[in-house]
Amino acid sequence: MEKIRVGIVGYGHLGKGIELGLRQHPDMSLVGVFTRRDPGSLTGLDDQTVFYPLDAADRMTDQIDVMLLCGGSARDLPEQGPYFAGLYHTVDAFDTHARLAAYFEAVDQRARQADKTCVVAVGWDPGLFSLQRLMAEAFLPQGHTETFWGKGVSQGHSEAVRRVPGVAGAVQYTLPNDTAIQAFQAGRRHDLSAREKHKRVCYVVAQDQADRGEIEQAIKTMPHYFEPYDTDVVFISQEELARDHAGLAHGGRVIRTGRTGPNQEHKQLMAFQLQLDANPDFTALVMIAYARATVRLAHEGLAGAKTVADVAPAYLSQRSPEDIRQSLI
Amino acid sequence: MEKIRVGIVGYGHLGKGIELGLRQHPDMSLVGVFTRRDPGSLTGLDDQTVFYPLDAADRMTDQIDVMLLCGGSARDLPEQGPYFAGLYHTVDAFDTHARLAAYFEAVDQRARQADKTCVVAVGWDPGLFSLQRLMAEAFLPQGHTETFWGKGVSQGHSEAVRRVPGVAGAVQYTLPNDTAIQAFQAGRRHDLSAREKHKRVCYVVAQDQADRGEIEQAIKTMPHYFEPYDTDVVFISQEELARDHAGLAHGGRVIRTGRTGPNQEHKQLMAFQLQLDANPDFTALVMIAYARATVRLAHEGLAGAKTVADVAPAYLSQRSPEDIRQSLI
Repeated sequence: MEKIRVGIVGYGHLGKGIELGLRQHPDMSLVGVFTRRDPGSLTGLDDQTVFYPLDAADRMTDQIDVMLLCGGSARDLPEQGPYFAGLYHTVDAFDTHARLAAYFEAVDQRARQADKTCVVAVGWDPGLFSLQRLMAEAFLPQGHTETFWGKGVSQGHSEAVRRVPGVAGAVQYTLPNDTAIQAFQAGRRHDLSAREKHKRVCYVVAQDQADRGEIEQAIKTMPHYFEPYDTDVVFISQEELARDHAGLAHGGRVIRTGRTGPNQEHKQLMAFQLQLDANPDFTALVMIAYARATVRLAHEGLAGAKTVADVAPAYLSQRSPEDIRQSLI
Repeated sequence: MEKIRVGIVGYGHLGKGIELGLRQHPDMSLVGVFTRRDPGSLTGLDDQTVFYPLDAADRMTDQIDVMLLCGGSARDLPEQGPYFAGLYHTVDAFDTHARLAAYFEAVDQRARQADKTCVVAVGWDPGLFSLQRLMAEAFLPQGHTETFWGKGVSQGHSEAVRRVPGVAGAVQYTLPNDTAIQAFQAGRRHDLSAREKHKRVCYVVAQDQADRGEIEQAIKTMPHYFEPYDTDVVFISQEELARDHAGLAHGGRVIRTGRTGPNQEHKQLMAFQLQLDANPDFTALVMIAYARATVRLAHEGLAGAKTVADVAPAYLSQRSPEDIRQSLI
């Protein structure tokens, strides 16, 4: 069997997760990593990994079946998503919900012109959590869905703290409120506020001369990011930050409660949960499975932008349809 | 918008669950229930429900878009599945794993001849649990999956107890072993035996003259059903059985633990859980969502037998693709 030939664009946490994750997929092989940095300056986690300059990508379309875009949603993907959709089948982890419609449209248009298949917003949220919200609502139309995140490191919120004047380093943890989860699961509450659902804790290294009171105030009053939540700010040393807060654990759960029966007397509950020691590793593995699906959809001639909602689960699996029926159904 | 016109075959727990569940789906309408019993002897949960004799079904193919087969896997579906696949797009809840391959083949052959789309083995296990096993393995190829059932009423095991000589009535509960679940989740165990994973409890009404010791012995030594498990047998009165054990609650969970990282040092966990007050109601709602998907697949010309693994999640939803991207991704 011919292996699926994979390219990676971008070599941060996610790109490295793909490089490692491909070892778990014997039907796929890594052709190379495309980067804006000097390829000669980089060493892979795997000795065999080859690095190419980003602008070499347009000359390698006959060597790569699917390109995994590992850039960020803020600056990289708005440009790279549509660009690569004109050259390759792609998978990306675009995660800025407010701009998803415009991004989807831009990728879709280019992909259709170039007859490419591009699955966008792949990962766990958006991604697997989106699928759970979709399926839970489809199976329990009369009900309520809530998504709880954490305990885990939010990279967007950590970044926001690092931009506060006087901050030398920071990590932000999102913590779900277990009491709120229990109340929702029991059907006692389905109108939980942002403040009730989650709490935020920031571990901050202050610059030597900085006023800690001012830093704490600036964080706690930051609109959207921290103002709607109860936020704890804990000052620690650079050593403590490096020693105790280098991990990228995360997780969360999607819960739906619904009602059935002639008088709505039966309570039905669906819950999906993730506990991840390494968030980027898992996101990378999800992208790899969707890369396999993308190649299969492309073979069926399904051009354009897609989301996880458009992909039949069988396409994700290394197993044949017969084996799926035999071993997993 | 034209409503999807639904027919039901069989009017037990599942058929009644479909009848009720359709109220939660404004884009679908019930044409009627087909039954082997005298249609005049039946009254629906809904006054509007019309009953037809089973042999009227072959004359109504222009009035029904999809037929939901609610018969049992042992006696009804092996005949009804292929028969209706020759007349209608269908959804069924076939759940005898050992005979799935032969059943799939029989339905597939007839459906392809008749250009019909038939989704088999729909429900929660097989069904949603199958999907979770499939996706969890696809996303964490190096790992272990376990399925735990309960606490809940197993209808197959209850039926097996009722067939024991001297038994006047019985209900069997399957209970998961929480210690085993915790050990699996923590990665300490992934070789759990049947006896370690589940325990079985039978509430039994003995016939007046029956020897209770013999009944208990016959249950506990029954191959496949009870011999591989620790089983408790509790004798109760007919009144207690009717008063305390009439419910059909069930549930369970699918858990996968996997490893990532250069040295497999990161633990990743995916878990899916159901807690159902009314098992047949929920299975019925899952079938209804797959009926919507079946009609959509049929419109795309995808004839033959399918399973839940072959259905893109978007097809299950009442929402448009744009709305899914806006509201759920």
